[in-house]
Amino acid sequence: MTYRTPIADMLLSLNHGGGLLAAIKAGHYNGFDPDFSAAVIEEAGRFASDVLDPLNRTGDQKGVQLANGEVTCAPGWPEAYKRWSEAGWNAVSAPEAYGGQGLPLAVHAMCNEIWSAANIAFGLCPLLTSGAIEALDAHGTEELKQIYLAKLVSGEWTGTMQLTEPQAGTDVGALRTRAEKQADGSYRLYGSKIFITYGDHDMTDNIVHLVLARLPGAPAGTKGITLFLVPKFLVNADGSLGARNDIFASGLEHKLGMHASPTCTMSIGDKDGAVGYLIGEENSGMACMFTMMNQARLNVGIEGVGIAERAYQQALAYAHDRKQGRAIGEKGERSDPIIVHPDVKRNLMLMRGMTAAARSICYATAVAIDISHRASEESVRTKAAARAALLTPLAKAFSTDIANEVAALGVQVHGGMGFIEETGAAQYIRDARILTIYEGTNGIQAVDLVMRKLGADKGAAMTDLLDELSGIVAKVEASNDPAFGTAGLRLHEALNAVERASKWLLEKIATAPNDALAGATPYLRLVASATGGCLLAREALAAQGDEALHNEAARYVALARFFAETIVVQANALERSVIDGADTINNAAAVLAG
Amino acid sequence: MTYRTPIADMLLSLNHGGGLLAAIKAGHYNGFDPDFSAAVIEEAGRFASDVLDPLNRTGDQKGVQLANGEVTCAPGWPEAYKRWSEAGWNAVSAPEAYGGQGLPLAVHAMCNEIWSAANIAFGLCPLLTSGAIEALDAHGTEELKQIYLAKLVSGEWTGTMQLTEPQAGTDVGALRTRAEKQADGSYRLYGSKIFITYGDHDMTDNIVHLVLARLPGAPAGTKGITLFLVPKFLVNADGSLGARNDIFASGLEHKLGMHASPTCTMSIGDKDGAVGYLIGEENSGMACMFTMMNQARLNVGIEGVGIAERAYQQALAYAHDRKQGRAIGEKGERSDPIIVHPDVKRNLMLMRGMTAAARSICYATAVAIDISHRASEESVRTKAAARAALLTPLAKAFSTDIANEVAALGVQVHGGMGFIEETGAAQYIRDARILTIYEGTNGIQAVDLVMRKLGADKGAAMTDLLDELSGIVAKVEASNDPAFGTAGLRLHEALNAVERASKWLLEKIATAPNDALAGATPYLRLVASATGGCLLAREALAAQGDEALHNEAARYVALARFFAETIVVQANALERSVIDGADTINNAAAVLAG
Repeated sequence: MTYRTPIADMLLSLNHGGGLLAAIKAGHYNGFDPDFSAAVIEEAGRFASDVLDPLNRTGDQKGVQLANGEVTCAPGWPEAYKRWSEAGWNAVSAPEAYGGQGLPLAVHAMCNEIWSAANIAFGLCPLLTSGAIEALDAHGTEELKQIYLAKLVSGEWTGTMQLTEPQAGTDVGALRTRAEKQADGSYRLYGSKIFITYGDHDMTDNIVHLVLARLPGAPAGTKGITLFLVPKFLVNADGSLGARNDIFASGLEHKLGMHASPTCTMSIGDKDGAVGYLIGEENSGMACMFTMMNQARLNVGIEGVGIAERAYQQALAYAHDRKQGRAIGEKGERSDPIIVHPDVKRNLMLMRGMTAAARSICYATAVAIDISHRASEESVRTKAAARAALLTPLAKAFSTDIANEVAALGVQVHGGMGFIEETGAAQYIRDARILTIYEGTNGIQAVDLVMRKLGADKGAAMTDLLDELSGIVAKVEASNDPAFGTAGLRLHEALNAVERASKWLLEKIATAPNDALAGATPYLRLVASATGGCLLAREALAAQGDEALHNEAARYVALARFFAETIVVQANALERSVIDGADTINNAAAVLAG
Repeated sequence: MTYRTPIADMLLSLNHGGGLLAAIKAGHYNGFDPDFSAAVIEEAGRFASDVLDPLNRTGDQKGVQLANGEVTCAPGWPEAYKRWSEAGWNAVSAPEAYGGQGLPLAVHAMCNEIWSAANIAFGLCPLLTSGAIEALDAHGTEELKQIYLAKLVSGEWTGTMQLTEPQAGTDVGALRTRAEKQADGSYRLYGSKIFITYGDHDMTDNIVHLVLARLPGAPAGTKGITLFLVPKFLVNADGSLGARNDIFASGLEHKLGMHASPTCTMSIGDKDGAVGYLIGEENSGMACMFTMMNQARLNVGIEGVGIAERAYQQALAYAHDRKQGRAIGEKGERSDPIIVHPDVKRNLMLMRGMTAAARSICYATAVAIDISHRASEESVRTKAAARAALLTPLAKAFSTDIANEVAALGVQVHGGMGFIEETGAAQYIRDARILTIYEGTNGIQAVDLVMRKLGADKGAAMTDLLDELSGIVAKVEASNDPAFGTAGLRLHEALNAVERASKWLLEKIATAPNDALAGATPYLRLVASATGGCLLAREALAAQGDEALHNEAARYVALARFFAETIVVQANALERSVIDGADTINNAAAVLAG
């Protein structure tokens, strides 16, 4: 297959579901011209289909190699990366002061969806670079920025995020890599890291590693970790590359999927210590890490949207092509394409609906982040930051959960052919599986949603979101349009369920935190499906009201309705699961011991 | 890991959830002693852990090879198969007249669960042999039975089921392999087949292929297909092996999982025609195929239970072993095993609960099949056959759907390690993926449930099932035991939802069949989760009432409660999805075209 960028869907999602147009109208977008979005993604789509898509299978089949401490990517990948970065794609939303285009993150998010759909293992590399750019821009010294930032922005060098150690995964504070200060103000680092994505590769001539380590005498746990910039090659005063630094890939993981993305074990300082430079303050590494990680979480959600879209497109094409059986009422020997069968249609509608809902949640998150940076009024920025913080775990967890569900449905649509690797559908199952795990497992996202995002402001950001969503539902109900079926009712019920579950959780956070934690995962699914359902309804209403989209409106209404009637309708059950599940979960030890 | 047979869970499930003891008490089991079950599965469990489990990874990694028309299995597999068949495991429920032990299918089902849990790709081979035994026993001539049946029963030879061709998957009637009658009464077959499981291998010295083909002038579609027995090697009058028959493996599929199970493209009759013998009447192949397939569908469900149990055991062990973070309220630097975290407990409870519910549905199906053969009264046999027919699509589809869900949760519990192949958890995702597809996709199972099983007798078998399940719910409600939480209420609501959805579907089957087909998949999930929930409740009540299980009763009650409160609670949403989804699904073409 060749991935085709769904431009109309993406623009409707960004402009209306994600709320870009409303934000621009309210003056929160610093003069951005929304017509520009279409031009960017059309161009990105062309590049993705022409250059990245053909390398997707190659990468899966050939994988990566490690020899003599150097990682080699799949054939064609270094050339493709060079073309991609030279075309300026790495710099879309990067700071203009360092050569970036300074476009909104929302536009960058659309591009990231396109890279992920065309070739998810390729698109992963620049996501790491983005995190490094953000952390360095926010916390780096002017000197470090001058040396490293422009090269990262252009994509001439890539970045890594080095947190994980064998005993320190989710529990970052348990890491043991140590750093010692040198007379010249630099540091030497010693230790090892695992699961380092693109920890080494041959696509660029230098790599900028951001490494978390612990200084002598630092406080235990997360309060005692510090972030360092550790280049693969040291950089001379004139910007040229100097000596090879003492940080090497010492192993590659053999993974279920994402075969073309090197996942490295890193040996740091085995010879004479790896030279590193402080980012931020000593012992403030956790804050720096969250700077990298927040946007990374959105980006992983976007990866989920991209691969789900790809899986959907492939399944749809197969359902049109493959002939088996007859539609009800048809006679004779000719077979019909399987898309005539209602169960196949259901699978495809589920794939499309879940992908669209996840996309709109991700885009809404990107818009909120943009407003939190671009709006002129501080109160608007603060409120948008809270919205972005609330939406980020939804964007990450819901989009990656549905990516796995969509990939599985895609294989199912293919029948026996889906299980055969040559078909390509199975690769999406393998690749998507990591998305629910890295950058914080989806369980951690749910805990973050309940304990930090809901709990931190006593539900204020959630109330604000529910107010906005209720406005959408009121419009659906006021439309009295039978094409919406029972969507208005289902969305209304779902928002009520979110409200009740949130209230219950807020009580439990204070009085019985294990009860709140036990309900975190179904609560996230509840909030995300209600939010996604409302955003799809807003898009459908906007399409109805837009002359240019008038012929398309009916299908957006039908999709919003289907999502509400088959996914959002689970809201009351999810609410019960949040509330009723705690008792058995808290007492699970005895059950599980048997 | 090494798989440990969960003997207590399996016996409770068979005896009470599956209803074996009640059936024995009612005199429907032809004198079978239930204490015998325990002895058999203890022995099977030992063999599985000692011999089959160690080959599970070997098989996944080494896979199978095809050279010079001969398939070679992974190292150690032929020896293991020999030990397994010589120990009598192939013959558990096979007919005594041909050397079988004549034990109930229910006992055989437990054994099959054990083989699948220990090594699913190994356990798949005898499932095909079982299908061949059944078809041959039911439809073969006395002469064919004399020559082939004892060898198949002992496992000295294995069987295959050869239905699928490139244009004929779900649509079996489209097959083109042709058969021509010879002067001696035998036939010659010409054609090719795809996706033939264990179509060739080196574990036995002969293979008995059951091949569907079309005779000259046969009616189009399913009414014109005929079943033939086509041995790999012809058999001489004295039982010794004769000439190599003209049926060869010409290709092996490169699959997502089940690497150790050869999936062959078969070339039939390329030289001078493959010698075949008629099974059943000419043009009655469809009926013979269903004989093979019905029990095969239950067996695939059982495979789902087995691999789910294995995935659960591995995740549980990891959750006890892996230390990350602290339980709420714990301080200091020591980390706790991740099983202290409520979200991990929820995942493990979901894995255990779904596995237990699927097991009980499968065992109840096996018990119904046994009664349909063993009961002395014809009316009892007929009713049991209808029950078995109703439960079979639930057993197949629900168990294999949850197998995939459980395998995915298992990877999730492992975090990043889950994505690494060496951990082993990812293999279960890969292996389980085929279960929802082969022997009729789960979409086909749902259509079968609605159109054939519900529709055929105007809901009589469903009403009969609901009556039995309502009796269980009444006992839960009457117990007033707070340990059941809201389980009684949820089960009650779910049975009402099944009743309403069934009524709606019965109307639509007659008046608007596409509406009925559109709701088939959520209907199957609704019926299966309600049924599974009630069976778990029956097991919990039985444990409470059994002195020997008194110390264990609390955990069975908690599991039944958790399943009702988190899975069965989705019943109303599933009912709405059945009924409200039809409109958008029937009009999906326009949505999907955009």
